[in-house]
Amino acid sequence: MADDNTSMPAAKKAKCESGDVQEARKDFTGFVVDKVLNEVVQSKAIFVQGHFKGSDEPAVVILEKTAFDRDTLGDMLSSRMELQRIMQNDIYDVYNGYPPQNLNGISTRIIYPATERHIMKYTSQQVYLIEETAADYQNITLPSITSRAFSIQWVYNILDKKAEADRILYEDEDPEIGYLLAPDMKWDQTQIDNLHIDAICHKRNIKSIRDLTEGHLPLLQNIKEKGTEFICEKYGLTKNHLRVFLHYQPSYYHLHVHFTHINFDAPGSRVGQAHLLSDVIDNIQLQHDYYQKKTMTFTVREKDPLFQKFREAGKV
Amino acid sequence: MADDNTSMPAAKKAKCESGDVQEARKDFTGFVVDKVLNEVVQSKAIFVQGHFKGSDEPAVVILEKTAFDRDTLGDMLSSRMELQRIMQNDIYDVYNGYPPQNLNGISTRIIYPATERHIMKYTSQQVYLIEETAADYQNITLPSITSRAFSIQWVYNILDKKAEADRILYEDEDPEIGYLLAPDMKWDQTQIDNLHIDAICHKRNIKSIRDLTEGHLPLLQNIKEKGTEFICEKYGLTKNHLRVFLHYQPSYYHLHVHFTHINFDAPGSRVGQAHLLSDVIDNIQLQHDYYQKKTMTFTVREKDPLFQKFREAGKV
Repeated sequence: MADDNTSMPAAKKAKCESGDVQEARKDFTGFVVDKVLNEVVQSKAIFVQGHFKGSDEPAVVILEKTAFDRDTLGDMLSSRMELQRIMQNDIYDVYNGYPPQNLNGISTRIIYPATERHIMKYTSQQVYLIEETAADYQNITLPSITSRAFSIQWVYNILDKKAEADRILYEDEDPEIGYLLAPDMKWDQTQIDNLHIDAICHKRNIKSIRDLTEGHLPLLQNIKEKGTEFICEKYGLTKNHLRVFLHYQPSYYHLHVHFTHINFDAPGSRVGQAHLLSDVIDNIQLQHDYYQKKTMTFTVREKDPLFQKFREAGKV
Repeated sequence: MADDNTSMPAAKKAKCESGDVQEARKDFTGFVVDKVLNEVVQSKAIFVQGHFKGSDEPAVVILEKTAFDRDTLGDMLSSRMELQRIMQNDIYDVYNGYPPQNLNGISTRIIYPATERHIMKYTSQQVYLIEETAADYQNITLPSITSRAFSIQWVYNILDKKAEADRILYEDEDPEIGYLLAPDMKWDQTQIDNLHIDAICHKRNIKSIRDLTEGHLPLLQNIKEKGTEFICEKYGLTKNHLRVFLHYQPSYYHLHVHFTHINFDAPGSRVGQAHLLSDVIDNIQLQHDYYQKKTMTFTVREKDPLFQKFREAGKV
């Protein structure tokens, strides 16, 4: 079904309400590709804008390769699958394989006529990798964070029990080393395999990793040890099942730590964004001002105000 | 190139060293599917064990759907792409699409004959997170690596131009700070968005990050600077598009560095496995024996001999 919370043109809306059904297309006859709006390489999906000949209205076509069908695997891996060799080394042989057309379907969604909002929704933003030196943090990032005055009132509401109080799983009320554990908004709380719990510290004004020094080690160790212990006991896990990390840049500038199940391929668990809590503790123990001096690498989307600041400063 | 840290049967090894090349297959005639070892739904990959009729030796076949080729999108979205409607609601239309066979290739890797280790490597298993102290490395990991005597002959074949010579993109022949760049075996070389190139150093006996000290800084900086420069120029990128990292544990114990496009959500780019080359250089500059002393966190599969060793030592 449609997952689009976009408005539809009045004419189409009327048509929809009247219960009309568009005739099914047999193929893409008359379709013209105008541009690729976005591509998600990992999941083999592509978002295309185009039009049908004779129509002024744009169409958005979303193609996504499908998972393999185990029932037809034997039919696919047969004399009907043509092979073109790419390379060979010892026992390793690499080919392009061409299965029969009917066994190699693609999930195909057509939005037609598409509105400007559909087109925006499916248009990609380039992501860039930034190496932020200590000086860059002081001169670019910190002023940008401060000037944007991110509201973290919603975090204080949670800490003060004015909101989401029923979602708190665990709390240590100590003002220096205390924190609470709550399920991340993105976790449905049913699948242990994608467990995602956040620890939010009570102490205020620790904006991110950049502010952490040896004075925070008791807080960090308390989160690592007691938080892990609580989650393991509650969900029947061991510490070897948990990935415990912080983000830089974080999505909000009040110190918090993510606990995720090792089986969960969380989008934010990549190097250059996620920092293991154990590494953070080790590094501060090695050098008390490690995170004030370290060049920090992170990814940022082109329309993020922070990216604009780095570009203005000639750093990208 | 192959990313398999598995030993090869003696017969095959002799064959490889004599420079023989197996004849290319035209299709999968005679192939019988025995079982599905694993499936990665997110990336549309499946790992199959089977055999060729008349042979007792197993084969592992790895199929992975490929990203879309922008150059042939127009040909694909034409009258030649058959559509079967799944559902329709107002402006939203969902189909199964069947493009012409020749435009819908699948990345196909055949490992034949496959060893027990290959089969284990590609079989789905629970993953665990291990915190390896410096002492654990000396007492558990290092003896385990050494005793298993991983064959890296195939790496030496590449370095000595006995295999895959036509795949080398760039080479610095210096025995101390030199390396070559070659496309990773998992990259189809057509999509820049999932660019994946490996730098393999000429110097031997650097097993992993654990062996790196300040003496290796010139090598690491040479890879970071010249490798980045070469790739950016060849593919029209800037350094802000490239994620440059090493794995710990690596898939084979000869130092190599991965260059991937920032848009590519490479499975091996997660924290706890990937280490940014820039961070590695920074940390060694901060403390020359950082990677000998540091507790290293990594993920390991339950059937990996290394996991067994950690379990036997009571560390899991």
